[in-house]
Amino acid sequence: MANSKYEYVKALFEAEDKLMPSTWIVLRINGSNFHKFSDEYGFEKPNDERALKLMNACAKAMLEEFPDIEFAYGFGDEYNFVFKKTTQFYKRCSSKIVSIGVSFFMSVYAREWKEFFPDKDLSLKSAPFFKFRTICYPSTTIVRDYLAWRQVDYCHINNQYNTCFWMLVKSGKNKSEAQDEIKSSRSQDKYEILLKQFNMNYNELPAIFRKGSCVFRDKVEEKCNGNGQPVERLTSKLVIDHPDIIGDEFWVDHRHILKGNTTPN
Amino acid sequence: MANSKYEYVKALFEAEDKLMPSTWIVLRINGSNFHKFSDEYGFEKPNDERALKLMNACAKAMLEEFPDIEFAYGFGDEYNFVFKKTTQFYKRCSSKIVSIGVSFFMSVYAREWKEFFPDKDLSLKSAPFFKFRTICYPSTTIVRDYLAWRQVDYCHINNQYNTCFWMLVKSGKNKSEAQDEIKSSRSQDKYEILLKQFNMNYNELPAIFRKGSCVFRDKVEEKCNGNGQPVERLTSKLVIDHPDIIGDEFWVDHRHILKGNTTPN
Amino acid sequence: MANSKYEYVKALFEAEDKLMPSTWIVLRINGSNFHKFSDEYGFEKPNDERALKLMNACAKAMLEEFPDIEFAYGFGDEYNFVFKKTTQFYKRCSSKIVSIGVSFFMSVYAREWKEFFPDKDLSLKSAPFFKFRTICYPSTTIVRDYLAWRQVDYCHINNQYNTCFWMLVKSGKNKSEAQDEIKSSRSQDKYEILLKQFNMNYNELPAIFRKGSCVFRDKVEEKCNGNGQPVERLTSKLVIDHPDIIGDEFWVDHRHILKGNTTPN
Amino acid sequence: MANSKYEYVKALFEAEDKLMPSTWIVLRINGSNFHKFSDEYGFEKPNDERALKLMNACAKAMLEEFPDIEFAYGFGDEYNFVFKKTTQFYKRCSSKIVSIGVSFFMSVYAREWKEFFPDKDLSLKSAPFFKFRTICYPSTTIVRDYLAWRQVDYCHINNQYNTCFWMLVKSGKNKSEAQDEIKSSRSQDKYEILLKQFNMNYNELPAIFRKGSCVFRDKVEEKCNGNGQPVERLTSKLVIDHPDIIGDEFWVDHRHILKGNTTPN
Repeated sequence: MANSKYEYVKALFEAEDKLMPSTWIVLRINGSNFHKFSDEYGFEKPNDERALKLMNACAKAMLEEFPDIEFAYGFGDEYNFVFKKTTQFYKRCSSKIVSIGVSFFMSVYAREWKEFFPDKDLSLKSAPFFKFRTICYPSTTIVRDYLAWRQVDYCHINNQYNTCFWMLVKSGKNKSEAQDEIKSSRSQDKYEILLKQFNMNYNELPAIFRKGSCVFRDKVEEKCNGNGQPVERLTSKLVIDHPDIIGDEFWVDHRHILKGNTTPN
Repeated sequence: MANSKYEYVKALFEAEDKLMPSTWIVLRINGSNFHKFSDEYGFEKPNDERALKLMNACAKAMLEEFPDIEFAYGFGDEYNFVFKKTTQFYKRCSSKIVSIGVSFFMSVYAREWKEFFPDKDLSLKSAPFFKFRTICYPSTTIVRDYLAWRQVDYCHINNQYNTCFWMLVKSGKNKSEAQDEIKSSRSQDKYEILLKQFNMNYNELPAIFRKGSCVFRDKVEEKCNGNGQPVERLTSKLVIDHPDIIGDEFWVDHRHILKGNTTPN
Repeated sequence: MANSKYEYVKALFEAEDKLMPSTWIVLRINGSNFHKFSDEYGFEKPNDERALKLMNACAKAMLEEFPDIEFAYGFGDEYNFVFKKTTQFYKRCSSKIVSIGVSFFMSVYAREWKEFFPDKDLSLKSAPFFKFRTICYPSTTIVRDYLAWRQVDYCHINNQYNTCFWMLVKSGKNKSEAQDEIKSSRSQDKYEILLKQFNMNYNELPAIFRKGSCVFRDKVEEKCNGNGQPVERLTSKLVIDHPDIIGDEFWVDHRHILKGNTTPN
Repeated sequence: MANSKYEYVKALFEAEDKLMPSTWIVLRINGSNFHKFSDEYGFEKPNDERALKLMNACAKAMLEEFPDIEFAYGFGDEYNFVFKKTTQFYKRCSSKIVSIGVSFFMSVYAREWKEFFPDKDLSLKSAPFFKFRTICYPSTTIVRDYLAWRQVDYCHINNQYNTCFWMLVKSGKNKSEAQDEIKSSRSQDKYEILLKQFNMNYNELPAIFRKGSCVFRDKVEEKCNGNGQPVERLTSKLVIDHPDIIGDEFWVDHRHILKGNTTPN
């Protein structure tokens, strides 16, 4: 192939940004300047169920397209995709994973928009932007801690705050009054405000708001084999659910997810 | 803010992928699986002028949106954006530059499609994908060598090959015969084939095919000042042109591009 | 502290070279230009037991000085130090670990020299140089594969080759004849040469030559506690041994080494 | 060569830590825990001229051994070695440059000790340790800013502080009184304290204390050639001097240093 004297720039400068082998790769998406975007399209506050379900549909499409994604967790304008530890997806080059991820996610977002917002056109002048990044984790324990962190410190804390804030605003306070009232409150205080002032039990709000959404492949028991032994095998059915992923229960019930390879670790 | 026991994963693992300061950042875009995409939409071979002009329109929109891009060079399904040396765009974090770049470029590509292909709908099921990456170069000399490399080793060599290949195919050869005929030919041989078999002077083909396209801000001389001295200043007018960027002429005529800061280097 | 206009160079350029948390760090030492050094001091060929024991003494001193080193494996002029997965040694900064490692190892090498070579002065004009580097491994399995690789592909293969080569040379061949005779021989061939030509059973050579040396802390059973239960605890006794570290036996017998933390992985 | 199933660990994990080509590499040495070391050997406070000259001798030996080092600047227990921009020293691998640097510097330090401290033995039990690191700078301007930063913010500020501190201590104050007296003083205040209380003009102290030391190759005019034209060429003569390296004068007088390659930048 090409062979001019200028080729030296390639060999010298194009270092590959390969992620460490045998680690879990998390591809995290966050909306960029999403406040403006959600205002333009009149998303409901604090949560717009259609917008969340659109994000979930995109995440589901990601798992369909890229079988090496084993688990996804999202809320608001964020989604986290966990690739299996042994994935060789785009040779584990970070910038390639990021750009293919952005390309695919955005095209599905645009394609599926009509399904969830049939009354609004997604103008290309106001398309949503996303920032993607990759992060590596060497063990299952730490990936689980990462996911727990996103659920407790981001999804839960932000959602409780936003729920409180918007109830106060809708009840007549202006935004800075609402902010002042809750800015140094603890979780329990916000729970009380919602219950006493608005007769709203936070714990009874839809799980999709409080817990966010997980997308994963379900494992179902299939027909017995000749010996009458039940045979379990992975089906391709993708599930969207809103479980607690901090405790052990979900992970015990879904042992096939994030188990890594079978070698001792 | 958030403060659970899981937060440790952030401080430890989320290393920032900052690019070295005071270096030229090149953001390079390449179509991913573009052959399939171009077949689906019936792009003309070896070059589809509308598709190239659509790429140029996207590149122009990039320079309008991101003033820190000083120069862009593209051909086929590739485009290279050179950010100025001192840019602090997204704090020089590679994955953020890549994802914002992909987001913006793709949304412009979809938006401008109709302008260039009014007779075809861009189906979201067959959206184009792009791979983006960043590369740093420490000196103007090396950036110029990089751009020269893309023009001579990729644009020129590929285009001459493709022109030859498709002329042979259009004249009745099948693809593998065409390939065999030119696979070990030198540049001069291909020039002769085109001239003798097809009466085509390669050097007279449109510059947009042979040289690719550059996008940059032009500098024009403006009104004299009070002392009768002509005052040169940068206008915001963006220019798309197809110059040779290997030799010095273009760069001498456009000294304001890639000059770096004014300190000795 | 200091605050001149020049300080910007620090914040911008001094990226920390931190190694990924929760991975095993291997610090590998190799002699630099060691052939010359070993010739100058007349090391015996193919193995000089005193030189190997000096290396082992240095490795032992490393484990005494740096408790986060859990295991060391060496042969010839190479030594590998495995830091525990959770180590915060010099904040896991690669260049600091390398420079402190070199500083300490070299000063012990010079200090202990007299012990093993009482008849020769270590001239500072001909001091040994070492190249150090760090490598991270995310799981115990892979660290064990790494150690197995050094033992089988480097220690064993090199030692069998060198043993054969030097026996041929000592028996009167010149170096290039010796090289020619064994250059494309398989392991079994070299075994036969040694046995038939020199009546030497390779498998009965000292393990320190064939297997290299391991340094680790031994675990011994201590006094019963009040309930009559034996209590096992780590003693500080450092052991130098020459086991096979490819198979499982050594690792089963020394479960406290390389076990990582106790969390699932 | 070696070829067992374990070899995969190499290709996957041993990423090379190559430094960006065409950038200036600075190798910086700092004493590790040097306070303790200097106390043990009774270094004079605030500056021990013999210790500084020993450091300079080591730096000079570095430039003799490694011709790609173009300039060195040091003070106290720190030394900075600037490799030329185009150096291919150890293929620009950071950890190799660091370990060879440590190995060589330390062995010279031990070898030259007797020259400067003939009355004291350098015990190997109390050998000095050094931390080395590499930093890259893309332009000459920034390397000069880096060197200016070390001279003004570290050498000058620390030395003025230490001079003041030790004069107060030697005059009878205890260490915490001395610290209190100068802790929030400005440069001018410390100048006054030294002048009024101790009749010491700081600006007249030896330049080796106030400015630190530079090591570089001098360029001298040599014999005329046949045409009577003076011919300048680099001699191998190494110079140790104590100039101001913040302003332009030194650099104008020594244009051959840090000039980079001759291509525009």
